[in-house]
Amino acid sequence: MKTADATLSSRVETLRWRDGRLELIDQRVLPAEIVYRSYDSAAGVSEGIRSMVVRGAPAIGCAAAYGVALEALRLVDRAKTEFDARMAEAFTALAGSRPTAVNLFWALKRMRTVLDSMSSAPNPAAAERLLAEAHQVLAEDIRNNRDMGKHGEKLLKDGATVLTHCNAGALATAGYGTALGVIRAAVEAGKRISVVAGETRPFLQGARLTAWELLQDGIPVTLITDNMSGHLMSRGQVDAVIVGADRVAANGDVANKIGTYMIAVLASRHGIPFYVAAPLSTIDLQLPGGEVIPIEERGPAEVRGYADIQWAPLGATVRNPAFDVTPAELVTALITEKGVVEAPTAEKIAALFR
Amino acid sequence: MKTADATLSSRVETLRWRDGRLELIDQRVLPAEIVYRSYDSAAGVSEGIRSMVVRGAPAIGCAAAYGVALEALRLVDRAKTEFDARMAEAFTALAGSRPTAVNLFWALKRMRTVLDSMSSAPNPAAAERLLAEAHQVLAEDIRNNRDMGKHGEKLLKDGATVLTHCNAGALATAGYGTALGVIRAAVEAGKRISVVAGETRPFLQGARLTAWELLQDGIPVTLITDNMSGHLMSRGQVDAVIVGADRVAANGDVANKIGTYMIAVLASRHGIPFYVAAPLSTIDLQLPGGEVIPIEERGPAEVRGYADIQWAPLGATVRNPAFDVTPAELVTALITEKGVVEAPTAEKIAALFR
Repeated sequence: MKTADATLSSRVETLRWRDGRLELIDQRVLPAEIVYRSYDSAAGVSEGIRSMVVRGAPAIGCAAAYGVALEALRLVDRAKTEFDARMAEAFTALAGSRPTAVNLFWALKRMRTVLDSMSSAPNPAAAERLLAEAHQVLAEDIRNNRDMGKHGEKLLKDGATVLTHCNAGALATAGYGTALGVIRAAVEAGKRISVVAGETRPFLQGARLTAWELLQDGIPVTLITDNMSGHLMSRGQVDAVIVGADRVAANGDVANKIGTYMIAVLASRHGIPFYVAAPLSTIDLQLPGGEVIPIEERGPAEVRGYADIQWAPLGATVRNPAFDVTPAELVTALITEKGVVEAPTAEKIAALFR
Repeated sequence: MKTADATLSSRVETLRWRDGRLELIDQRVLPAEIVYRSYDSAAGVSEGIRSMVVRGAPAIGCAAAYGVALEALRLVDRAKTEFDARMAEAFTALAGSRPTAVNLFWALKRMRTVLDSMSSAPNPAAAERLLAEAHQVLAEDIRNNRDMGKHGEKLLKDGATVLTHCNAGALATAGYGTALGVIRAAVEAGKRISVVAGETRPFLQGARLTAWELLQDGIPVTLITDNMSGHLMSRGQVDAVIVGADRVAANGDVANKIGTYMIAVLASRHGIPFYVAAPLSTIDLQLPGGEVIPIEERGPAEVRGYADIQWAPLGATVRNPAFDVTPAELVTALITEKGVVEAPTAEKIAALFR
């Protein structure tokens, strides 16, 4: 395994703008390899999202914003009608990349509004404005994460062991992280926090990304398989759970990485607080409850093995839902950049947007 | 992947006696390779158990019985005092191979009783008697599994989708299986049963062994990662859960493969029956409750990756408890060779042994 450059630390750049292109750290090969892939079109970024070069709801939103900007920059020389038609295709391609994380659609809507506002401007001006907006989406995401950290860290006690699932860290965002941002803020506030990371099959975001991110920051991390969290809770070895979210419905139901629901049910049984850290861009006020959140079902190879090795017999049918829904009743508090919402309800969530 | 011989079917031999040796199918490499390893000593069998060439509580019990017999056969020419001392060492080595499955200790106690009863007999006679007892342990295990199947299959409705965890099949026993034996018996009774198999990290008994066993028998099987069972239950896609057990305490608490507890908690939340299929040899009347069942903690490499690949950073600490405890209150029924015990209690379990 190549050793990660210690200077990456929590400032690992998930997305970066270099020489007129978007570069994404390839999260499929971390932590064994640190490789950036370069994109210059909406189709490329769309494929990068679909194949999970970039993942994590806020990071996907940022990547999509850059995807729109890149496409506009590619098309500056085209006639206005062609520019408009191609941009519409770009939006469609990006929107079709993954279905569950709402930040993707949130970012595309924001970019659409900017593009519409530039409809009478020359293409280069529109493209520049879209790029500025993408930079803005990225900068806001980091600021939101810092704010979530500031609000959320108050919920964690000195000496706490905090269980997390998947990767809701710097690698899932433009930087710092949602759930891991709260943990980082607690550590920055002087608290001794240790983390239990579920490995998160099938893509192993916990084992590969969360464990690596936290080691970079010197935050103690213990890796478990996903089926061990209940045992640790039953033995009193988990003080709190913090996860991110891919989409929060208007009533506070939370779609997040598959397995989150099981952790939430076990936390409830053991009286352990279950926190969800997510920016307002993850909240979908259009959906009344979690039962209508679209759940992506991915291909069978991910479940039959990992990367190049397949350990299960090919004849076995596979289910591969990438997300599940945790009902709001199991969420102790929702941590947002606007503050902490305890025992979230539709009313309390609506109030965040006022 | 080498294709499994279709004639193996459910009559795959987990353990077999060939030319004066014990042969164990190597469960570390299934289903990619079908390889039998040959043993002629207690130390060898002990290592085979420890390294998981053979696994599954009843199969471990059978292997240990043969380990005792093999050692006696090796020592027939020794003086009685040396024979006795070496046999005592053999019992110690086998008892130290793995701590949680009580069938190991049950089988050793049974073999100890036989050896003690032959204390005045010549070594060859004692060794022959021990071998006959090992054959008996194996034959009884298959019969018990058939009886469990007969009793338990009545609990499964035609058309049911049954979730199982780990491998409690032919490969976990002398043949037929405990949990999978109940499923096989339901299929033999003409019911259409489909199975959802959790992959069972870290050793992947579900993905490699259960999926393979069921495919051999033509029983439809859908593979999931361990963190997906809650989602399937929440969508009404699981009708019943059946698992095996490594040790059942006197009050009905069940130690079984790590992850079983989480499935039981989720099943309870969704009103799905949770069945445990285990022979009386898995019930430990000496232990009042599950909190005193010893839980094996295995090494970190199993969690950091699988087989030769390691995907997690080496710096991460690892927890690797191999089992967890499901309290009796979550067990809908215990299926034994003596019949079905609904809502098991200490009184009902004690009655099984009268």
